[in-house]
Amino acid sequence: MKLIPYSDLKDFVARLFIQMGASPINAQQGAEVLLSADLRGVDSHGIARLEGYVRLKELGRIDLLAEPEIVHETPSTATMDGKSGLGLMIAPVAMRLAIKKAEQCGTGWVAVSNSSHFGIAGYHAMMALPHDMIGIAMTNASALVAPTFSRERLLGTNPISMAIPAGEEPPFVADFATTTASNGKLELLQRSGQQTPSGWVQDETGIACTDPDILKKGGALLPLGSDKERSSHKGYMLGSMVDILSGILSGANYGPWVPPFPAYVPMPQNMPGKGIGHFFGAMRIDAFRKAQDFKYEMDNWIRRFRTADAISGKEVVIPGDPEREMEKERRMRGIHIDNQFLAIMRRLADQYQINFFE
Amino acid sequence: MKLIPYSDLKDFVARLFIQMGASPINAQQGAEVLLSADLRGVDSHGIARLEGYVRLKELGRIDLLAEPEIVHETPSTATMDGKSGLGLMIAPVAMRLAIKKAEQCGTGWVAVSNSSHFGIAGYHAMMALPHDMIGIAMTNASALVAPTFSRERLLGTNPISMAIPAGEEPPFVADFATTTASNGKLELLQRSGQQTPSGWVQDETGIACTDPDILKKGGALLPLGSDKERSSHKGYMLGSMVDILSGILSGANYGPWVPPFPAYVPMPQNMPGKGIGHFFGAMRIDAFRKAQDFKYEMDNWIRRFRTADAISGKEVVIPGDPEREMEKERRMRGIHIDNQFLAIMRRLADQYQINFFE
Repeated sequence: MKLIPYSDLKDFVARLFIQMGASPINAQQGAEVLLSADLRGVDSHGIARLEGYVRLKELGRIDLLAEPEIVHETPSTATMDGKSGLGLMIAPVAMRLAIKKAEQCGTGWVAVSNSSHFGIAGYHAMMALPHDMIGIAMTNASALVAPTFSRERLLGTNPISMAIPAGEEPPFVADFATTTASNGKLELLQRSGQQTPSGWVQDETGIACTDPDILKKGGALLPLGSDKERSSHKGYMLGSMVDILSGILSGANYGPWVPPFPAYVPMPQNMPGKGIGHFFGAMRIDAFRKAQDFKYEMDNWIRRFRTADAISGKEVVIPGDPEREMEKERRMRGIHIDNQFLAIMRRLADQYQINFFE
Repeated sequence: MKLIPYSDLKDFVARLFIQMGASPINAQQGAEVLLSADLRGVDSHGIARLEGYVRLKELGRIDLLAEPEIVHETPSTATMDGKSGLGLMIAPVAMRLAIKKAEQCGTGWVAVSNSSHFGIAGYHAMMALPHDMIGIAMTNASALVAPTFSRERLLGTNPISMAIPAGEEPPFVADFATTTASNGKLELLQRSGQQTPSGWVQDETGIACTDPDILKKGGALLPLGSDKERSSHKGYMLGSMVDILSGILSGANYGPWVPPFPAYVPMPQNMPGKGIGHFFGAMRIDAFRKAQDFKYEMDNWIRRFRTADAISGKEVVIPGDPEREMEKERRMRGIHIDNQFLAIMRRLADQYQINFFE
């Protein structure tokens, strides 16, 4: 375990991306998106995935020279082909286009095909905030989730993020997988040898269980809600909406055909689209009402919820608060990287001939 | 209990709305929206609410002569003031405006303040389907839901609907409250004297319980996910997103200040906005890709999910299928109205001097 300054980590990742073929600008952008996960405490989506991206590149499944292309547009919409590029670099281009369209006609919506993992959805949604816009980002992902009553895995964890500006208060930032638990949480339990709480996973016959390794044995994650009695069909509907907007509207793959992140997992057969898909939105606040008035009411909303009468010893949390606190702390003190990932980074540094910070 | 043809019921409601002051066109529209709930099996939102609307009118809280007004707009957005009208009549006007804007610039988004209950969200979202558009509808509602760790009720059941066209297959229609269970389901259990499943409600101290009457004793509905361990914070975030888009973006009330539906419940103090709020969206499919190609892939999605390997004795359900089957059946055979509601309708018929169908 080592505590490494954020800027050193970001510099390392950017240099690696350059050696892998990315332009300096794209490399910086990709590193910033990747590291935003570590900063915000979503440790499963940051440095922990770095080697995964490298393996995809080595297999030729992603192209770091790719520049996304607009293939269709209207005043408030666009569809982009990510050209097999790295989602970390493509998503910000698409989000900037959504913001530009919102400047021109109130809202902007961009569907992206032929992309790959884009890091945390929250980074992209939050790009809208400095423009006094509400930002929306979502993506589909390879199938790990069983719809209600299904034994098969047909949906990814398909996250949604929405970032909403406030006035004196910090913004409202929701960013969540549409499942009861993320795969990252299962991995933590695997390492510590613990069982999962009930309602997180099922086995290959569709029976609920608590084995954190069950995904390797044909099991599945459960949609938000856990089971039919507690409305898992709502989590299934939500994950499906993300899949259709990200995958079908864009011309990407969807459902069980979304390509896997781990390079050792074989690609699905008969894929109907290109790569994985994302969907982005930006809505100008003053396309609906004065930004100042909106922000005043948002402050009122946030303060009312934050000071709500809470269960003894607990507090009502405003979405985005814990991640922002974590980011403040980690920008100041650095990010803990455990020995497993330090060894991987050292190996990648050797392989791609870049300096390692020791 | 009596089985009444759909057209008779609709005619009855329309005549009642006319006697209450609505124009014939608005009365027809309002009756169609209200009855769509009974047709689709959402019995808590149809005839069961009729008397509630009448009481609100009698208290002067809604105005059946109101015509909604556009107070702000851009090419892809508008904000409407519902002028204290009936949500059943205002929402279709707002949705038609969203569709018109989508025709012109790809997508259309309309936030509505100063409205009241709009029936089922699905009716409004489905208005987009004949235009080859994706339809979105949501609304906030008076606070019955406790955010994660809160003892207070700060959010409504805040439903979301998304309707997505397919080709040869019927459309995908999701329509769901952002809670584990709806208030309507609690009412059914109250009548039959049963306890709720775990994870639906909590008591006034914030402890989970199974008493279906607990809302009358200071308890609360739980957000989708049920508890923190099963990610109720995600249901809380989702309900908050609906509240902010519907309530704050439009200039309506939000959070604990949304006016209650039952006329005997006192209005909240210090209300920051006007009435309750809705949010509607319409996205033209061919603003992203050829509608024909999209529909081909939607058919493929629907067939793959419908034929998924299911748990023994169960099947994977496509969102919208059960409600469409119910609607087909009830349009043909009529709608069962129980004696309680028959008596209410007879009383309203006397009071408003309209014929009752007996």
